[in-house]
Amino acid sequence: MSETRADADFARGAAYVDGEVVPVDQARIPLLDTGLTRSDVTYDVVGVWGGAFFRLDDHLDRFLRGCERLRMTVPLDRSEITELLDRLVRASGLREAYVEVMCTRGVPTSGSRDPRTYDNRLYAYAIPYVWILRPEEEAGMDAVVVRSTRRIPPDSVDPTVKNFHWGDLTRGLFEAYDRGGRYPILLDHRGFVTEGPGYNVFAVVDGALVTPAVGVLEGITRRTVLELAAEHGLSTTIDDLEEPTLRQASELFATSTAGGVMAITSVDDSPVGDGRVGHVTANLRDAYWKAHSDQRYVTPVDYASRTQ
Amino acid sequence: MSETRADADFARGAAYVDGEVVPVDQARIPLLDTGLTRSDVTYDVVGVWGGAFFRLDDHLDRFLRGCERLRMTVPLDRSEITELLDRLVRASGLREAYVEVMCTRGVPTSGSRDPRTYDNRLYAYAIPYVWILRPEEEAGMDAVVVRSTRRIPPDSVDPTVKNFHWGDLTRGLFEAYDRGGRYPILLDHRGFVTEGPGYNVFAVVDGALVTPAVGVLEGITRRTVLELAAEHGLSTTIDDLEEPTLRQASELFATSTAGGVMAITSVDDSPVGDGRVGHVTANLRDAYWKAHSDQRYVTPVDYASRTQ
Repeated sequence: MSETRADADFARGAAYVDGEVVPVDQARIPLLDTGLTRSDVTYDVVGVWGGAFFRLDDHLDRFLRGCERLRMTVPLDRSEITELLDRLVRASGLREAYVEVMCTRGVPTSGSRDPRTYDNRLYAYAIPYVWILRPEEEAGMDAVVVRSTRRIPPDSVDPTVKNFHWGDLTRGLFEAYDRGGRYPILLDHRGFVTEGPGYNVFAVVDGALVTPAVGVLEGITRRTVLELAAEHGLSTTIDDLEEPTLRQASELFATSTAGGVMAITSVDDSPVGDGRVGHVTANLRDAYWKAHSDQRYVTPVDYASRTQ
Repeated sequence: MSETRADADFARGAAYVDGEVVPVDQARIPLLDTGLTRSDVTYDVVGVWGGAFFRLDDHLDRFLRGCERLRMTVPLDRSEITELLDRLVRASGLREAYVEVMCTRGVPTSGSRDPRTYDNRLYAYAIPYVWILRPEEEAGMDAVVVRSTRRIPPDSVDPTVKNFHWGDLTRGLFEAYDRGGRYPILLDHRGFVTEGPGYNVFAVVDGALVTPAVGVLEGITRRTVLELAAEHGLSTTIDDLEEPTLRQASELFATSTAGGVMAITSVDDSPVGDGRVGHVTANLRDAYWKAHSDQRYVTPVDYASRTQ
């Protein structure tokens, strides 16, 4: 890896492209990269909170497993990726950051349509923390159950390999806005609940948690919530989640690295429970943020390192 | 539009990014463009043959319709796009070219997840003509009916808006290679034939053409073949195409801007018909290339223009 440009403006974040660390606004990739022209790419996002990565190893495990399933050869090894992400956060100076790493199939070798022959490429960046729901919004998420489109089924695109096939999710986002909400929830072709753009969904039913089993990303925040719930003596079920349950649940919430545990307080304009953030959600949200100082989960960023 | 860099090497093609025409190898887009990070993009590809665009207006119609369906605002108008594509071919000096234009949702405005607020971006490039099957390969395409994955259904991602949601197609391509072929054909969730990566599929049954109706791109080459077939007195049907028909048809062929009309001479290692290019396919292939000098279809590139 070459040197970081010392003269650059990293206020909006730092990125890694072609062996160089640059301000994120200047980071550019080849127009012909099949990450764009075939969406042939996987990625992961890890949060930095209070100057430490949260569950870095779990995110890297999932990322590298995704690359393997796509039969990509990641150009950096695991320890090099760890060092790179640390370096990007350091370059940005951020204490709270949204750190993304992606691997693309790369640029076609001249005239070849055979993806086995391309050199796979790694990109990464660290930017200020991203919130799907800002914590100051006590109102919670206004969810909309999407009618115009169904989540891409898992036998077409494997959702457990984190991917950018977001056409259905983006269309859902437009529908949500059109219908006066901001947070779409997509159903699968059987009519069961799946997820929204960037978040898993949980329902609280008779005091127990239920979250969809199939057709969804196996989110790390989702997993953290399942673990914390078990530690707090809550019953959890990973199973089909029927649409009517969204309207009968006492509480609903969404989980994402981009915001943690976020209450859903209405569905299609009807309040969930009494329409306020419920106590199960609030307790899990507190537990989630407390876990960010739990040594099991955190990897401090080495801000003092002299290596740029 | 600013000036073309006069000193550059355009041998491998010319591209348009951010108002500038550059050698395609140097064309780069922002890492944070949601064209990459959400596959929020539509595109079209038009061929140049013998120094003329083929069915340019039809490709532009489809492209602009796709942008509209995605609710994108294309930063250039139709006549500016036409002039741009002409300029790119001129800059490349190519007489036969593969010319792509794409519109992406663009880069998120700081902190916003609302795609309605982004400035949509247009990119384009002209490179040497791309062949899915090179014409010197008289053997034809060795097709593989994919088992590992199903084509993304149209109620998840609309295939008539040309898109880069190719995860299923790419997975099919790997399966084809694993099974000793090169040309996957994907089925839909009902088990009917859809398409392959970049090509529509036709069967010749009792001397008549059948091509799938739903879950496929409405290819311009497909349309051309349907029109030419009608002119030649062939019966054509756009309907569900059952998988067994692939094995019973007297001829099969694929259509794409990247290669035209291409015979499929085997399916899963079994010959189609007698295993050679059939006469219906050969006649349509000839008619297709003859149409490239038909005034109805062609728009000559203005190579002599002084405007760079």
